[in-house]
Amino acid sequence: MDANPVLAEAVRGNWVENRHRGAFVVMDAEGRVIASAGDIERPVFPRSAIKSMQALTIFDRHAVERFHHSTEELALACASHHGEDDHVTNVANFLGRMGLSVADLECGAHQPTNGVAREELRERHEEPTALHNNCSGKHAGMLSVALAMGVPTRDYVKREHEVQRAVRAAVELVIGEGLTEDRCGTDGCSIPTWAAPIRAWAHGFARMATGQGLDAGHAAGARALFDAATKHPHLVAGTGHLDTLVMEAFGSRVMQKGGAEGVQCGAIRDKGLGYALKCDDGNMAASQAMVAALLLKFADPDEKQRAVLEGFARQPTLNVRKAVVGEVRAVL
Amino acid sequence: MDANPVLAEAVRGNWVENRHRGAFVVMDAEGRVIASAGDIERPVFPRSAIKSMQALTIFDRHAVERFHHSTEELALACASHHGEDDHVTNVANFLGRMGLSVADLECGAHQPTNGVAREELRERHEEPTALHNNCSGKHAGMLSVALAMGVPTRDYVKREHEVQRAVRAAVELVIGEGLTEDRCGTDGCSIPTWAAPIRAWAHGFARMATGQGLDAGHAAGARALFDAATKHPHLVAGTGHLDTLVMEAFGSRVMQKGGAEGVQCGAIRDKGLGYALKCDDGNMAASQAMVAALLLKFADPDEKQRAVLEGFARQPTLNVRKAVVGEVRAVL
Repeated sequence: MDANPVLAEAVRGNWVENRHRGAFVVMDAEGRVIASAGDIERPVFPRSAIKSMQALTIFDRHAVERFHHSTEELALACASHHGEDDHVTNVANFLGRMGLSVADLECGAHQPTNGVAREELRERHEEPTALHNNCSGKHAGMLSVALAMGVPTRDYVKREHEVQRAVRAAVELVIGEGLTEDRCGTDGCSIPTWAAPIRAWAHGFARMATGQGLDAGHAAGARALFDAATKHPHLVAGTGHLDTLVMEAFGSRVMQKGGAEGVQCGAIRDKGLGYALKCDDGNMAASQAMVAALLLKFADPDEKQRAVLEGFARQPTLNVRKAVVGEVRAVL
Repeated sequence: MDANPVLAEAVRGNWVENRHRGAFVVMDAEGRVIASAGDIERPVFPRSAIKSMQALTIFDRHAVERFHHSTEELALACASHHGEDDHVTNVANFLGRMGLSVADLECGAHQPTNGVAREELRERHEEPTALHNNCSGKHAGMLSVALAMGVPTRDYVKREHEVQRAVRAAVELVIGEGLTEDRCGTDGCSIPTWAAPIRAWAHGFARMATGQGLDAGHAAGARALFDAATKHPHLVAGTGHLDTLVMEAFGSRVMQKGGAEGVQCGAIRDKGLGYALKCDDGNMAASQAMVAALLLKFADPDEKQRAVLEGFARQPTLNVRKAVVGEVRAVL
């Protein structure tokens, strides 16, 4: 297998310490490659970067008509949230409105991603619950789909469950190709994840951004989800996170979402472009540097947006005494 | 720059999620390459993997005669310890015996690497001190060198300080080549780190293991340091860490030491071999899988040693609910 190019590197002093290879692609809704580097046909697990695609089931299974989901709930369905108060409270309410509770979540519990939230839990001597799981909003959305479909909610995370079949079908519809059993794994939150080329993920995001190539229902659902995510950037990630800061800076222009193990996906909505990238080694900081460089190049940032992106395209490395000793930087 | 080969990968379900490239080399003391992969001439920062080389100054600057350092102190001078009780107590005593204290350490404070030690500090509402810094033993050794040299201890971490000049000279002597200003950075603990090819690091470890190519004083110092490290494996790293488990299993046969950002170095002493490897992207788990595979191949492990190594050569990946969903594995 050919090596992808180095798209980010870590410098210490005057020497490169680490190299991060990867591939990226920017596409339009008709499937034209606007720019790319590396192997855009190598299938990669999108992980959490495609939660908005998975959340289309809330529309195509008519959960949105049944529960009249708020924009906050839709944003949380697309989120990898940081377990801060607004995340936990909103997900609890999301579940409560459907007659469900944290006990119905099958994502498992983990410590909040946000350090302050983690500290507050510890000081109250409380264990985290499944509400703190960064995926709890997505899971609440999947429970909504189960109820709307009239199927048992139990085991909704399993690959053979009607909800996951619906999720798979929605994703296949958006990317315009099939997901196959020989490229399947289990995500951190226990649902299936399917590998597909970044070319397909980027194309799917361009289609979601424009509605082009989608039926009217899916196009409207995609628009509603992108609107919700970009209206509530803090609900989609959390304090200080790239996704939140980028969407705060770009308003409705950019929908940006990271996924575990160095995946970044999104859409530059006013330009009708989708993008996807994967850092080959799974390094998150490097993948954030890469996507920041990509948006600097293709999203026509204004001064404020540029400042946010540059903070991720070059990230200082500190030593124990907090002196700057190097940086992680994109070399797109 | 040519890409190094993939030496480890992360699999999720039935698909490879991440790829970790790198280079490794196994050498004898005469400088013959026994085995290698990738570019062994690309200079890499060795970080903490060469603490035993740096500690040779304790011998060549006669600190050992002045302070009659115990094997525990010598092991700690070679250590990246985990801030557990035995580490902290021993480093405090090490400093105290020289009339110094934690206030003389210039490494900075960080939370203990060991989770239980971290939890105990928190429960006592105590902040970590420089004693908990994984490098505090190395720094105690450097302070010993400063005292033996009769120079001020203050600023002993700075590149131009006599101690760091002595450290640089000792490392250059062992690897048989110069370290250059154009490949220098600052380590996490504030001392300088110099990049050199893994070929040079591996050769240096083979020379330390055999004494070949070294004067009698440095040969004796190297033997004493390797004996100390392999006699006190827990002091060199900590509970559950690869370096500790490998040295516990191999006794005096293998001296193994990891360094930050995916560096692994060591010596198979009874075979007179040194080795070094660097994971290009700095991933520690991947570098541990790589070095475990290297030792499986070149260190003639018995059944018990093999079991320890296999636990690192293939490391299960768990999801939030603790189900095994993949693995990180060496592909050397």
